[in-house]
Amino acid sequence: MAKNHPTLALDIGGTWIRAATVTHDGQLLGAHKQATPTSGSPSEILRLCAQLADEARTASPVPPYGLGVSTTGPVNPRTGILYDPPNTPAGFSGLPLGPYLREQLGLTVAVDRDVNAAALAEQRFGAARGHTDFVYLTISTGIGAAVIADGELLRGTDGAAGELGHVVVAPDGPMCDCGRRGCLEAVASGPAIGRAADRHALANPGSGLALLRDSLGGTPLRGHHVGAAALNGDPDACEILAAAGAAVVSSVVDIVNVFNPQRVVLGGSVAMGEPCWIAQANAAVRQSALQPGSETARVVATELGDNGGLLGAALLLDQLA
Amino acid sequence: MAKNHPTLALDIGGTWIRAATVTHDGQLLGAHKQATPTSGSPSEILRLCAQLADEARTASPVPPYGLGVSTTGPVNPRTGILYDPPNTPAGFSGLPLGPYLREQLGLTVAVDRDVNAAALAEQRFGAARGHTDFVYLTISTGIGAAVIADGELLRGTDGAAGELGHVVVAPDGPMCDCGRRGCLEAVASGPAIGRAADRHALANPGSGLALLRDSLGGTPLRGHHVGAAALNGDPDACEILAAAGAAVVSSVVDIVNVFNPQRVVLGGSVAMGEPCWIAQANAAVRQSALQPGSETARVVATELGDNGGLLGAALLLDQLA
Repeated sequence: MAKNHPTLALDIGGTWIRAATVTHDGQLLGAHKQATPTSGSPSEILRLCAQLADEARTASPVPPYGLGVSTTGPVNPRTGILYDPPNTPAGFSGLPLGPYLREQLGLTVAVDRDVNAAALAEQRFGAARGHTDFVYLTISTGIGAAVIADGELLRGTDGAAGELGHVVVAPDGPMCDCGRRGCLEAVASGPAIGRAADRHALANPGSGLALLRDSLGGTPLRGHHVGAAALNGDPDACEILAAAGAAVVSSVVDIVNVFNPQRVVLGGSVAMGEPCWIAQANAAVRQSALQPGSETARVVATELGDNGGLLGAALLLDQLA
Repeated sequence: MAKNHPTLALDIGGTWIRAATVTHDGQLLGAHKQATPTSGSPSEILRLCAQLADEARTASPVPPYGLGVSTTGPVNPRTGILYDPPNTPAGFSGLPLGPYLREQLGLTVAVDRDVNAAALAEQRFGAARGHTDFVYLTISTGIGAAVIADGELLRGTDGAAGELGHVVVAPDGPMCDCGRRGCLEAVASGPAIGRAADRHALANPGSGLALLRDSLGGTPLRGHHVGAAALNGDPDACEILAAAGAAVVSSVVDIVNVFNPQRVVLGGSVAMGEPCWIAQANAAVRQSALQPGSETARVVATELGDNGGLLGAALLLDQLA
């Protein structure tokens, strides 16, 4: 975000594509969104992205400095070309997202993973303000992470580092979409929690979860069903959520041992629905992480929530230097 | 290592304290060592370190530029003061190693963990030559690691990052010295392999491992006993080593997903004794890590072996800038 100039921001998620102008102090102007076309062709998605960004530019009070794009799934931040993403609409692989938008809009364009953008936003405007070493962990439909180490994004040699959701936490656990067994994502993401409840319902006819599943016409349970059932006191739902929480908490201790961060910021719809995980993770870090990181690290909740990716997209242009 | 000046290097391990002069092209001059005093007081260890470094200085052909010190266990590289280490002789905690040697020798002194030093040495002289993104993983009495990301050591806010041996890989596995259950170190370090064989021997009287244990007068089995038994074809020893190897291989895939490195360098006596782990890890990375890191990363063996810490100590002075 050059000087005090506003920047265009685009956030391409699995559900929504959002656009806005972001001011230097983190205000979103003229934010609007459209549903991500799940059956659309890659070129349709590109056109929609360009259209939303152009609408945001037209609505901007002053000419924006450039366009930052945060996108779900992996991308090469140096080229703006997408890699094969496991959890996004089909057809994204190899898509020249950055080059296309640059040509269409005639603006400087920076593209990065949504988690990297969200981490930058938490650092500038949110729960990691002023920190140089922290990890942003989002637990939602997938589990992703971004690492800021000594003030810089940990990118790896292809710009694909930070996949903490694809670390095995339960070698005998459920299969993960990535092909391994027991990744954190296969144990504690929303869909994973839903599948665990489904398995329990099918194995225990007559249980609360089985009755819930029947009441939904036998469609598979989803993470938010389990959260609601737990709130209503269903013991099996509570146990399934507790198991997911234990995996998240243990992973946070791992993160403290590996990265020795000042903060671990938890975000994503699943984590935001289970605020007790924050307290549990802090207690576990204090008790079980190695010194001196165990004393230093604090686990905190996202302050920006769903706006992190969009706000952070605007900060990606600073990363081009 | 300023220009072409040689540098003094000291490597404080659990078994030996070694000292040498290191030339700019990675030659060790006048290397000598003494056993680490296991029952010695902290001040005795400090005096021995100063004495060995001073002997190396006296033997150096030209006045050395400064002293680099690599030490087992955690240390604050900014202060040169040791943290509480789980696997080293008692009495190291809080020891002002760097300040003491600086005062005694009148030289610039840099101190860091042995794994950080070894990683720098592999980058300059060994298996990671020319690489900016790699992970050095050592599997020995303990399991430690150092991460070089975008050309820089990943340090964390207290200089304690990189403890990949204390990531849980088997939630129901054996207790680790750090207090958690199933850390990689508790599953695949030399002592962990020995304890697994011991448990097997005690549970299976008459087995090859039980007879081996009896032949040792009933003393606990150690990692190298298991390696030797496996070489002799003992099926239980082979199985125990294979389980440790599977954990290491899975951790290497995790490492590729998290760090997206160009290289993973495996070192340490246990890994050096099981060269097949390298091929297995490469196959697993290719098959199971996320794209594009799965195509990029290569798993390789240390080229410097036991000399990595000592050679790398000399490179620590470059890190002071």
